[in-house]
Amino acid sequence: MPSRVYLDWNATTPLRAEARAAMVAAFDLVGNPSSVHAEGRQARRLVEDARTALATAVGALPRNVVFTSAGTEANALALAPGLRRPSGGPVERLLVSAVEHASVLAGGRFPADRITLIPVTPSGVVDLERLRAELHGGPPALVSIMAANNETGALQPVGEAARIVHEAGGLLHVDAIQALGKIPFSINAIGADLTTFSAHKIGGPKGVGALAVAEGVAGLEPVLRGGGQELNRRAGTENVAGIAGFGAAVKVALQTLPEDMKRMATLRDHLENGLRAVAGATIFAEDVERLPNTVLFTAPGLKAETAVIGFDLAGVAVSSGSACSSGKVQPSHVLSAMGYDPAVAQGAVRLSLGWSTGPDDINTALEAWRKLGNSLLKH
Amino acid sequence: MPSRVYLDWNATTPLRAEARAAMVAAFDLVGNPSSVHAEGRQARRLVEDARTALATAVGALPRNVVFTSAGTEANALALAPGLRRPSGGPVERLLVSAVEHASVLAGGRFPADRITLIPVTPSGVVDLERLRAELHGGPPALVSIMAANNETGALQPVGEAARIVHEAGGLLHVDAIQALGKIPFSINAIGADLTTFSAHKIGGPKGVGALAVAEGVAGLEPVLRGGGQELNRRAGTENVAGIAGFGAAVKVALQTLPEDMKRMATLRDHLENGLRAVAGATIFAEDVERLPNTVLFTAPGLKAETAVIGFDLAGVAVSSGSACSSGKVQPSHVLSAMGYDPAVAQGAVRLSLGWSTGPDDINTALEAWRKLGNSLLKH
Repeated sequence: MPSRVYLDWNATTPLRAEARAAMVAAFDLVGNPSSVHAEGRQARRLVEDARTALATAVGALPRNVVFTSAGTEANALALAPGLRRPSGGPVERLLVSAVEHASVLAGGRFPADRITLIPVTPSGVVDLERLRAELHGGPPALVSIMAANNETGALQPVGEAARIVHEAGGLLHVDAIQALGKIPFSINAIGADLTTFSAHKIGGPKGVGALAVAEGVAGLEPVLRGGGQELNRRAGTENVAGIAGFGAAVKVALQTLPEDMKRMATLRDHLENGLRAVAGATIFAEDVERLPNTVLFTAPGLKAETAVIGFDLAGVAVSSGSACSSGKVQPSHVLSAMGYDPAVAQGAVRLSLGWSTGPDDINTALEAWRKLGNSLLKH
Repeated sequence: MPSRVYLDWNATTPLRAEARAAMVAAFDLVGNPSSVHAEGRQARRLVEDARTALATAVGALPRNVVFTSAGTEANALALAPGLRRPSGGPVERLLVSAVEHASVLAGGRFPADRITLIPVTPSGVVDLERLRAELHGGPPALVSIMAANNETGALQPVGEAARIVHEAGGLLHVDAIQALGKIPFSINAIGADLTTFSAHKIGGPKGVGALAVAEGVAGLEPVLRGGGQELNRRAGTENVAGIAGFGAAVKVALQTLPEDMKRMATLRDHLENGLRAVAGATIFAEDVERLPNTVLFTAPGLKAETAVIGFDLAGVAVSSGSACSSGKVQPSHVLSAMGYDPAVAQGAVRLSLGWSTGPDDINTALEAWRKLGNSLLKH
């Protein structure tokens, strides 16, 4: 495909060379990590090296990291009644911010009548006063708030949320899928009890995720049972190559993070200024701290479905919001939660940048937008 | 590692060259299969091509194949109350053979008091009369019987079981993980309602499985929710490369099956005769039809843990039974179900062959066994 520009990094990223190399090397190891012979022990070593790499990067103990098949499975594993700290009772209800990923909104193993949505401000940031009010007086709650929103890029006050949740005797789950590799992230600095990560958002392969559990958190119930893998927390033969790829990706992502952040933010600012110059475009959540790589925008009369196809035909891959549903363009629940009406929510287009995005990519995207914005909306 | 002999194919197989090539090709595709742009559509095509390949190989409709992260997850997806055929009521209880894999014995989403074990004969074959008796008179049942046992290789009468189960208004789940690629297998010929497969047992990657659902079966409840992937039956970004590898592996496995079966059976017979010639060794389930590649044996006084290490030091990878637990050598529940006492069950060693196993591998294994058998047991 000649000179495609990929600006849909929040949906998934290219596989990093280091991750590819780690996976290809793993392909030569035949053993099952649960086997005791030499082949099995070699495969086991790859899995444990990756576990140490991820744990080190995010400030967890390796033994508290559980590899899963995706962020979705890690979220399903995290969200269940019965989790507890030694000092507190088991959680009995789930509070989730209204802008969480669909796999968190699904609520894991909490029954629907034990799940409460916490609203967000018009800028898409969770309302901590409402969180405090919901926590007050009720039974211990598990609270799930993402570190950064996948659609708007808005950072969430997860550190402050942790203090509020802990004061109320609850536990905090943080979906850090979009934050990892894009901003500095430390489980300890935040005080998260459970944290979800995904490989394919940082240059690892699709089909690998992880849940990090803070030391002292008990009562984690497996979703997949019938096998002692992952210290009895997740049955099933491990995706050895994929896990090795995750470990390799996380190492590179963290090494290059400071430089990537700066470069992406500069490009992002240039992109946003260019977008705003055409057809009255506006950027969502522009008044709050956001990921350095994420731009969600709209313009009066814009239809996201048409715009995504128009960008695609112009050689630029962009998104109408989350790609995680079914390929269908649906109004974004994130923008609805921010108070926008459905017509606006159906006109939002997301451009997300990554480590290999350069000025030419941004210029091509802006050129495409100038044509689209003028032709789609001015006639 | 110089001249290792790998005879633990039932735990996991080497990655086939064709699967590796398909995965490496997939590494170049950046898109998320749920994205609507060109990159997304390319990734989607890989997933759907693999789905068609697996469906064609086993006699399912592509739309009825759900990719999962492993056989364990496919079993968890299959085993849930509420499944039904248009003609029958929803299943309310689970009957499983006593020699099923741990992920089936775990019972999925059935409560423990709705799960009944169906015993096996001393040769490790499910007792169909006991199945018939258990089905009689009770509410509709889901029955789970594997096509071939992973430890002994004993084939199970799944076709006859399907007729018995359907007459009683129930549904049959078949764990075909060890059968696929080792014996001819057709969902339609058996009449299975739900069938589980795993990529890494046929030369695909670890971390990919599938559930095939027969046309007309309704009520499948996702294990992983919050995303429309896999036609709303399994949320989470697809393991695109892994699924592509599964598709490539299944094509080759089915092409070479007739020849592989013959060659493996000949080598297996040679291996069994050689084993029997030392230390009074005997083969389990030798009087029933078995997979052409699987040998489970013991000898008076043999300790599996010692034997596996002994073989390993002699350069031969073998297993003490299922590798799927935790790397620990535990007495086999399969041999217990066959009526053997724990001392015998702790002395069972499994040698399993594959498509690249040759006469030299068998001779090396037999040489190791002659030394081990004589030194371990004769002093």
